[in-house]
Amino acid sequence: MQKQVEAQIDNTLEATTTRTQNRLAMIVFSGTIDKLFPVGILAAGAVAMGMDVDIFVTFWGLSALTKNGVKTNTKFSKDFEEMAVPMMQLMQKKNVPSWYESLKQAKELGNVKIHACSMTFGLMDMKKEDLDPIVDDIVGVGSFLGLARDSKITLFI
Amino acid sequence: MQKQVEAQIDNTLEATTTRTQNRLAMIVFSGTIDKLFPVGILAAGAVAMGMDVDIFVTFWGLSALTKNGVKTNTKFSKDFEEMAVPMMQLMQKKNVPSWYESLKQAKELGNVKIHACSMTFGLMDMKKEDLDPIVDDIVGVGSFLGLARDSKITLFI
Amino acid sequence: MQKQVEAQIDNTLEATTTRTQNRLAMIVFSGTIDKLFPVGILAAGAVAMGMDVDIFVTFWGLSALTKNGVKTNTKFSKDFEEMAVPMMQLMQKKNVPSWYESLKQAKELGNVKIHACSMTFGLMDMKKEDLDPIVDDIVGVGSFLGLARDSKITLFI
Repeated sequence: MQKQVEAQIDNTLEATTTRTQNRLAMIVFSGTIDKLFPVGILAAGAVAMGMDVDIFVTFWGLSALTKNGVKTNTKFSKDFEEMAVPMMQLMQKKNVPSWYESLKQAKELGNVKIHACSMTFGLMDMKKEDLDPIVDDIVGVGSFLGLARDSKITLFI
Repeated sequence: MQKQVEAQIDNTLEATTTRTQNRLAMIVFSGTIDKLFPVGILAAGAVAMGMDVDIFVTFWGLSALTKNGVKTNTKFSKDFEEMAVPMMQLMQKKNVPSWYESLKQAKELGNVKIHACSMTFGLMDMKKEDLDPIVDDIVGVGSFLGLARDSKITLFI
Repeated sequence: MQKQVEAQIDNTLEATTTRTQNRLAMIVFSGTIDKLFPVGILAAGAVAMGMDVDIFVTFWGLSALTKNGVKTNTKFSKDFEEMAVPMMQLMQKKNVPSWYESLKQAKELGNVKIHACSMTFGLMDMKKEDLDPIVDDIVGVGSFLGLARDSKITLFI
């Protein structure tokens, strides 16, 4: 009887409950460095909380994660353009790691995967060797939604 | 006994667990076409994954979904203004459907509902006939949050 | 037997299901008044739906919630710059409460907590007395993610 009850509880749970993973999913559409900064910080914070992190980089976010983008992108949100120089100086003075360094460190410390959006990849005629090595693979939006819907948190940045 | 156990499991589940729906909820605040593009793509991707989609269009997002907005809006994010022309040319060359076409197609293929924010609707003195026919109804933010909190994913775009 | 079954159901649920709180979590990165507006509206709407609200203000969002920011910030998203004046006039004409008033009212009516991002606080050399009294405390990103992952909805604004 005990065994039967256990099996039945398992089946009922299987059928009806949400079994989310302890995971932070982020869709990174933006590509200005002030908006990439929280991507690095959130990834690092999630790793420190024992969470897995899956990041889907698309559009301007994927451009920022090409080898060229990582090297040359200094775009700051136009809304706060006049703050770009003082903010970057402040960060350097305080030795705040860049968004890229934060993200890289998060990958070293935890289970952080970065997925390039296959549609943007195709649209922009990218080649695999154009992507920064921090990018793990190229996936479709459907696959990423499959991951995201079982995650505790999903953000659009 | 078997029946009693079953009923009890159901009651316990009813009381204590999260029963989320296989649904993607999006609050679309933005109104530039580069940010509306992922709305269409995400809706189409979610439908392909068997998810329902509920979209709450508010502020600039609602403006973009008026009949006039659909026809005349060519706004691109100021952050990437210089990319507007080459990006639109690239999309045309590659026959990438517009955000509006993607959204319309997602509606044809799946259960996608578009809700206009009642507060923005009132604030902007809109009439029902101002809205593009793709919009299903006009709802308050509270009702939408009621939907969103039972959804697997909720995004603010 | 009945008691044993109950205890076992509880244990199984404890171990395997998501027990999310009826809570809206928001990470507020933006600081333009058009984007702060939905923060107030969503907080008020969530309270009306019986939800708790936890808001993490970071970067430009934290700047906007300093005493000085609350008084002087009139920044509007550059994407819709030309709409700033007519939109603000419309809101005044229609007696729409400001984002700050909406947020304050939501705090008076419900369980709304506003948390300043400790990293931004440190980076910008802020002092506690610089923050508007509407801010409840200063927390790290990890703590906030701990709250957010048990929330029904988490948004990045």
